[in-house]
Amino acid sequence: MMSNDEIQKMIKELGELDIDMYNKDFLQTWEHPMEDIKAVLLVSLALEEMYRANISCRVFDGSLAVSNFRDKSTRTRFSFASAASLLGLDVQDIDESKSQVSHGETVRETANMISFLTEVIGIRDDLFLGEGHKYQKEVADSIDAGFKEGVLVQRPGVINLQCDRDHPTQSMADLLHLIRTYGSLESLKGKKIAMTWAYSPAYGKPMSVPQGIIGLMSRLGMDVVLAHPEGYDLIPEIVDIAGKNAEKYGGSFTIVESMEEAFRDADIVYPKSWAPVTVMEKRTALLHQGKAGAAGMEVLEQECIKNNSRYKNWECTEELMSLTKDGKALYMHCLPADITDVNCTEGEVADSVFERYRLPTYHEAEHKLYAIAAMMLLTRFPDVSTLLTNVLDRGEKRRFE
Amino acid sequence: MMSNDEIQKMIKELGELDIDMYNKDFLQTWEHPMEDIKAVLLVSLALEEMYRANISCRVFDGSLAVSNFRDKSTRTRFSFASAASLLGLDVQDIDESKSQVSHGETVRETANMISFLTEVIGIRDDLFLGEGHKYQKEVADSIDAGFKEGVLVQRPGVINLQCDRDHPTQSMADLLHLIRTYGSLESLKGKKIAMTWAYSPAYGKPMSVPQGIIGLMSRLGMDVVLAHPEGYDLIPEIVDIAGKNAEKYGGSFTIVESMEEAFRDADIVYPKSWAPVTVMEKRTALLHQGKAGAAGMEVLEQECIKNNSRYKNWECTEELMSLTKDGKALYMHCLPADITDVNCTEGEVADSVFERYRLPTYHEAEHKLYAIAAMMLLTRFPDVSTLLTNVLDRGEKRRFE
Amino acid sequence: MMSNDEIQKMIKELGELDIDMYNKDFLQTWEHPMEDIKAVLLVSLALEEMYRANISCRVFDGSLAVSNFRDKSTRTRFSFASAASLLGLDVQDIDESKSQVSHGETVRETANMISFLTEVIGIRDDLFLGEGHKYQKEVADSIDAGFKEGVLVQRPGVINLQCDRDHPTQSMADLLHLIRTYGSLESLKGKKIAMTWAYSPAYGKPMSVPQGIIGLMSRLGMDVVLAHPEGYDLIPEIVDIAGKNAEKYGGSFTIVESMEEAFRDADIVYPKSWAPVTVMEKRTALLHQGKAGAAGMEVLEQECIKNNSRYKNWECTEELMSLTKDGKALYMHCLPADITDVNCTEGEVADSVFERYRLPTYHEAEHKLYAIAAMMLLTRFPDVSTLLTNVLDRGEKRRFE
Repeated sequence: MMSNDEIQKMIKELGELDIDMYNKDFLQTWEHPMEDIKAVLLVSLALEEMYRANISCRVFDGSLAVSNFRDKSTRTRFSFASAASLLGLDVQDIDESKSQVSHGETVRETANMISFLTEVIGIRDDLFLGEGHKYQKEVADSIDAGFKEGVLVQRPGVINLQCDRDHPTQSMADLLHLIRTYGSLESLKGKKIAMTWAYSPAYGKPMSVPQGIIGLMSRLGMDVVLAHPEGYDLIPEIVDIAGKNAEKYGGSFTIVESMEEAFRDADIVYPKSWAPVTVMEKRTALLHQGKAGAAGMEVLEQECIKNNSRYKNWECTEELMSLTKDGKALYMHCLPADITDVNCTEGEVADSVFERYRLPTYHEAEHKLYAIAAMMLLTRFPDVSTLLTNVLDRGEKRRFE
Repeated sequence: MMSNDEIQKMIKELGELDIDMYNKDFLQTWEHPMEDIKAVLLVSLALEEMYRANISCRVFDGSLAVSNFRDKSTRTRFSFASAASLLGLDVQDIDESKSQVSHGETVRETANMISFLTEVIGIRDDLFLGEGHKYQKEVADSIDAGFKEGVLVQRPGVINLQCDRDHPTQSMADLLHLIRTYGSLESLKGKKIAMTWAYSPAYGKPMSVPQGIIGLMSRLGMDVVLAHPEGYDLIPEIVDIAGKNAEKYGGSFTIVESMEEAFRDADIVYPKSWAPVTVMEKRTALLHQGKAGAAGMEVLEQECIKNNSRYKNWECTEELMSLTKDGKALYMHCLPADITDVNCTEGEVADSVFERYRLPTYHEAEHKLYAIAAMMLLTRFPDVSTLLTNVLDRGEKRRFE
Repeated sequence: MMSNDEIQKMIKELGELDIDMYNKDFLQTWEHPMEDIKAVLLVSLALEEMYRANISCRVFDGSLAVSNFRDKSTRTRFSFASAASLLGLDVQDIDESKSQVSHGETVRETANMISFLTEVIGIRDDLFLGEGHKYQKEVADSIDAGFKEGVLVQRPGVINLQCDRDHPTQSMADLLHLIRTYGSLESLKGKKIAMTWAYSPAYGKPMSVPQGIIGLMSRLGMDVVLAHPEGYDLIPEIVDIAGKNAEKYGGSFTIVESMEEAFRDADIVYPKSWAPVTVMEKRTALLHQGKAGAAGMEVLEQECIKNNSRYKNWECTEELMSLTKDGKALYMHCLPADITDVNCTEGEVADSVFERYRLPTYHEAEHKLYAIAAMMLLTRFPDVSTLLTNVLDRGEKRRFE
């Protein structure tokens, strides 16, 4: 646990950054300059320490945090609710089955209707390739217009809780985990991270996690290696971004076709399954057909699972781990993992490997709520450094004593 | 934005009203004397201004606002949640599918069981003609008895979030919109408002909005004109109320059979679809039959849609708008509207008309949350004028700085 | 309503108890020494009085209370939400259909993932015999490990909101009702309480209420009589506990086979239906088969209802009530009751009997929320006596004035 002085040092460092997040959104890490990324990291860490120090972080009193989960969620749902609670926001989930959204409301209208007292809108929309990010952008543009037109008194920040392109609250939590593990952002320079595909008996897992990882870690001077079987490509545009990042920030970005190669001398490994972009495209088309697409969906699923099963050897085993730097690479996962002999017979990771890194992955997950809370603060307040200083000075306790 | 002095002036004006709402409900506007209506308006406006001035309006700390939506809702759901959050109440939605209500609980019992720490119960029950209001009254009577019998420490206020008869949070929001548009309640005197039926491809829309409008606007010295095709009558009793109101309050109430006639020289137009009372009666009977009524429901729906389609010319077009006072009547709608070529091929309103009034309708919608919050305060506190004075004096910020 | 002095006296009494509940759970009353039970009673009563005295009991500011209802619930759901609101916790319900729980998450992992900012986890899991309590214990063990391993900053308390074995928030509410009725815990000594089966047209009611009652009331020096038709046995282990309790605490525990015998000279009667343990065992096996068990379930249900119908004379009638002490035994029920001629044609209790005790059963139900709040405080704070003293001294109002 940090002392108040140490927390204040971080807050001061925050104040020296040139950030431009107020009244904006957090949708994709690569849209934000490194100053913004650093700000999210600093605020996350400060909030974590303030929570541990039993300092109330409430800054809102009578406003909503709206969530819209267009796909199932446990961790992110609880992270969002926890972040909202931490800051004093009341969560209101928009359940599209109970609303009139399906009755012909336009996005523009609904976005404004739910925003009169709303500070933050969190959206998960990862099922439809080519659409999730677009939808989030449409919501953001709608409330931006509503705010400028004077309909909204405040301009809610839209936070991407996973879309078809990025999963920034996950990748930022992952980065916080690396900082906690290695001590600082600077210490990541030159480290090799292997983001590799892994076999899973499940089908249609989103690509946003690997895309988020290569899009963010390539900005830290790391050697980012992406590995996947032939055909399991990510969205080309984002692969491009990773390449350009590496050039700009002085690291490297390589794509290889075997787990072995990726793991060799890696400091960090992130083995995780995903569906190839071509399958996601077909799947999106079928999802749009609704019931009519059900038969096609079953065929696609079988094909896809069959194809996956050609790569059952893409499993993070002890043998593979022994290839990593000193045999001791940090294993990462966004959870839940498919663990061989635990929740499946053949999966992404061997039981013994996962068990060794189980607690670290729990810590990795914990950071997500603070990353979300940090995004909430930075999109909603013009000067978070001063705000947090005042919160510290206020000295209210999170738990009354 | 008003200054604190202007807000205080409104609060003082509130203190001079002779109101009798404490420990009661808000179910139908016509059950309340004009003093009550004025009180709701003043408190709504005061709360709006206090929100804009970043003043915390929290007055509750550890109590529930219970909502029971027996029909879909977006706007009203968020308005209720926002109003609760504004005042410090925690929302708990009663989802009848997850409760034991269907297992033989009496209304009387359930109403008390959910009320031990509850300050407000909001109910939407608009599907069953002849029953929605009755149900709300039964809940209100049950908690009234529970309070008098000492079961409940406090007596929750029941707020009608739309029933088969009235939609008071909507009509009060509409009235707030008129006050904001024209400057004062008094300035509405002599203005002509046309509440007219409009064509919609959808079927079975509730009658509570037009009933709410004619029931309320007829008390302001306005010339209220109701227009609908033959057979699209509203509940006769409420039409009667409108007529008597007009006599009593010095305006007029007329029913005409064409949109043209209603629009001519109108200051305000409110074109909106609804189902005729006869259809709602049949529909209610069929809804009660559950699955057994499904076939009949389909027949009724087809009949009704077919009948609607005879009146496709009941559309709020530019041509019709040109008939209004200086061609510039204020267009109103409770949203979502069926907009021709936007969310349907033929609807209630032409795209160009709606687009011109889109922002005003958003503002119209915004008031609903404050109207609900005002009803919450006035049913739960004996002296809201003093309460708000003390809230202002307390000077706590809604957003910490 | 008590004075502040009287409340402080209770809080002082609490401080003299030797309790060991901090950082633990509340799953079954018989796992707790009488000092713990007394502590829950005192804190419940203190909170009730503080609520009545308009004192804010908020002690949390930015933490969650997680609920997981694996069966329908109205009363307990609202009691949990109310208790959370009273103490300042934000409720987050884990809806397993919207989460990834079904996607292979282990209990251990999920329990930690939802607990980063969580102070309390309330679980209802009463459908599967032999499993509900086991599941709650697994969650408790998982977060205990997470806390010890440093994953969790605080250790949430797990509160049993009804399992297959006990329903402690109900039995504690029932005991509070007895204390309020008879004046003190001591005054219950020597009183005869009849926990008897009663006929219901419904099938498969859980056994946790009668088990909870005999497990708790047998510790108060009461004469506990359990009555049920042949074959409607409770879990033998818990019947044993009741017997041993009676010996240890100087009361008695008897099982009889007729309602008449149980009611004779009883001070208190608790007539309530439940399914026999053998049926619950078969039902659990069928529930596990999912759709495949549906046909078997229907057969079992018919058998069970048919068997129940042999005991329609097990109804709490006026005649039976006249057998009780002075004909005036206190009638108790956890609600909702099956009331003859009210919500069924033949049920657990005659209309006239229920109506006479309707208000008392409402009071009985009210205590549940305070019992839950007391369990929350006692599992989450090491010294609740000092805490409540400080809350009183703080003097913040629950409703601003």
